[in-house]
Amino acid sequence: MPDKVRLGIIGLGQQGGMYASVIAKGMVPHMVVGAICDTDPAKRDLAREQYPDVAVYQDYLTMISSGDVDVIVTTVPHYLHPEMGIAALGSGIHALVDKPAGVYTKQVKELIAAAEATPELTFGIMFNQRMNPLYRRLKEIVDAGEIGKILRTNWIITTWWRPQGYYDSSAWRATWGGEGGGVLVNQAPHQLDLWQWICGAPKSVYSKLGYGIGRQIAVENEVTALVDYGDGATGTFVTCTYDIAGTDRFEILGDQGKIVVEDSKKALVTRLRKPEPELSAGMDMADVMKLFTGQVDLDTLYTQETFESASPWGQQHADVLENFALNVLDGTPLIAAGADGLHAVRLANAIHLSSWTGKEVSLDFDDDEYLALLNARIREEGKFPERQT
Amino acid sequence: MPDKVRLGIIGLGQQGGMYASVIAKGMVPHMVVGAICDTDPAKRDLAREQYPDVAVYQDYLTMISSGDVDVIVTTVPHYLHPEMGIAALGSGIHALVDKPAGVYTKQVKELIAAAEATPELTFGIMFNQRMNPLYRRLKEIVDAGEIGKILRTNWIITTWWRPQGYYDSSAWRATWGGEGGGVLVNQAPHQLDLWQWICGAPKSVYSKLGYGIGRQIAVENEVTALVDYGDGATGTFVTCTYDIAGTDRFEILGDQGKIVVEDSKKALVTRLRKPEPELSAGMDMADVMKLFTGQVDLDTLYTQETFESASPWGQQHADVLENFALNVLDGTPLIAAGADGLHAVRLANAIHLSSWTGKEVSLDFDDDEYLALLNARIREEGKFPERQT
Repeated sequence: MPDKVRLGIIGLGQQGGMYASVIAKGMVPHMVVGAICDTDPAKRDLAREQYPDVAVYQDYLTMISSGDVDVIVTTVPHYLHPEMGIAALGSGIHALVDKPAGVYTKQVKELIAAAEATPELTFGIMFNQRMNPLYRRLKEIVDAGEIGKILRTNWIITTWWRPQGYYDSSAWRATWGGEGGGVLVNQAPHQLDLWQWICGAPKSVYSKLGYGIGRQIAVENEVTALVDYGDGATGTFVTCTYDIAGTDRFEILGDQGKIVVEDSKKALVTRLRKPEPELSAGMDMADVMKLFTGQVDLDTLYTQETFESASPWGQQHADVLENFALNVLDGTPLIAAGADGLHAVRLANAIHLSSWTGKEVSLDFDDDEYLALLNARIREEGKFPERQT
Repeated sequence: MPDKVRLGIIGLGQQGGMYASVIAKGMVPHMVVGAICDTDPAKRDLAREQYPDVAVYQDYLTMISSGDVDVIVTTVPHYLHPEMGIAALGSGIHALVDKPAGVYTKQVKELIAAAEATPELTFGIMFNQRMNPLYRRLKEIVDAGEIGKILRTNWIITTWWRPQGYYDSSAWRATWGGEGGGVLVNQAPHQLDLWQWICGAPKSVYSKLGYGIGRQIAVENEVTALVDYGDGATGTFVTCTYDIAGTDRFEILGDQGKIVVEDSKKALVTRLRKPEPELSAGMDMADVMKLFTGQVDLDTLYTQETFESASPWGQQHADVLENFALNVLDGTPLIAAGADGLHAVRLANAIHLSSWTGKEVSLDFDDDEYLALLNARIREEGKFPERQT
């Protein structure tokens, strides 16, 4: 068996260029760039100049069948991830799709079905923030039951400031037909993924969205969502792209503890010495008065621990590429399995759907209803063809 | 004109006792305790022992007509605030009601009508947190337009931990018939008031509540509410009484700045150098890339200022009493006018109503519908009589 897998990069834009760069820097020990393809002649010239030993293609299907690559990554507009993933898997090539897995659940389910039909191939997704050591540690803490049953989750993630010049940089950006949405499909999928990876998927959502707030765009750049986990627990998710001094604050309350994360860098973990209902039941009014007047040593009730971590530029992406390569080579478990990509798309779609219908939406919404309402927006926009499946 | 007003305290419980105490300590220069009344003989004995020079009554109506008091304060179960306020105003006595102004809008509107019929009398409400210098400063900043038009507000206020022993301390606590609700009518009215005092009232609300989570109580002790201001702005409000390591974090985003308050003690105020849409319009993609890669000096985009303040025990309450006394004596403007009490009750009712009906509720909901649904809960609970008006 070779000791390195050969990556085919589909699309040498900002992301594709970054992956090529971290591999060239040796940050991905078990991966080399086998080929690069791009429909833009200028990008192909750039590829030849920067990576003279790497094969360059115009058409991704030709690259897939060239024998130059073992795996591909899809750094292309979101709508294209499923069809490219399906084409690769159908040709015996492992597929790493960039996030989001697709724009709407119906196409993502087709991709997952293709992956299930080729279990010998690796199917992953670039949820690089799962490689943030802070979130990996928090997932371990929650999975181990250290904060007990989750009662409430709240994430405000508005560090995604994007000025008009960003939206104007590509014709497909922030359009219904070219991108399929705004902050929910472009910036926030990382948090939509982490939120569910750590806390589980909600059962329903009610949302209010803002479309083109302070920007000349048709899609949402403001989201306030209230979710219901179906077991008494609730949550909120707030994001937008016009908060220049953005907030990133994620809070998880359990019945045995609590986690508060600031800026995806620092976490305060509180662990109760007993489950909260037991602490509650064990206090009479005299104890309560002592607590209110500051006469109780809080250390007798809980412990607190702070974690901090930093991820240097490119390290998370390099780690996903390396984990993917190792899964191909020796079966090392994937941190970001491709099928997990459905969760964030489903939640993003449900948030859209609640805003479009004005109703609370089950996460088991009708895939066809979503696609029909998305197509209505693509039709009205008049810039790109409607989606057929 | 006398230089001090004489206060009649209705109910010598924890709050009434505190008001008597801060007045006795000289923290309210223009007020003396004129009389105390309580239906509990033990409390009357306590009053005579602690305040031997003060008249003590069993019945508040007798105290009102005794000539011993110029103003009364209602430190009694919430349902009673309106009827006691109305009785006082009807007898020519100034009325300071404790918060909340009442349990349901219909009774609060009757109180406000009584106050409007006696404009020569002062009508106030004990929103003591309006006296927190931090919130007063933030209100000035928002009112002056320093952060521009409000786009989003988010408050997580879960520092209201209350164990079972607290709920068991009185028969009326945390019942529909005796108290009229849980955290929305007892603990959170302060924040429901401050939120609207600073940011304005929302137009509608959608909510999910938890009833008796981890406690043997019928009423809500968990609230997640999503509000719509009707002009594109949204907000969330989260509170509960089972978070022992509680959070108090309030964020206001405007199109010219932002305020983040931690623990009601510390505020970070960001002021943009230009309105956000102008900053957005003035950046091309090259500027954006500089920003993403940390090559922009953020000082060129905004300034940041931190405020901190502390309120010693009792000072806020003493300040409300003093402000009320000065309004009676010389017309000094009230910081917490009684009519303002309607806003927090209306919002609390709308949050209940959304949970009870599963629908988004206008803040102009039908007062009678709310009362009917509240009475249905009082009936089911079977401990207290239904409310007639």
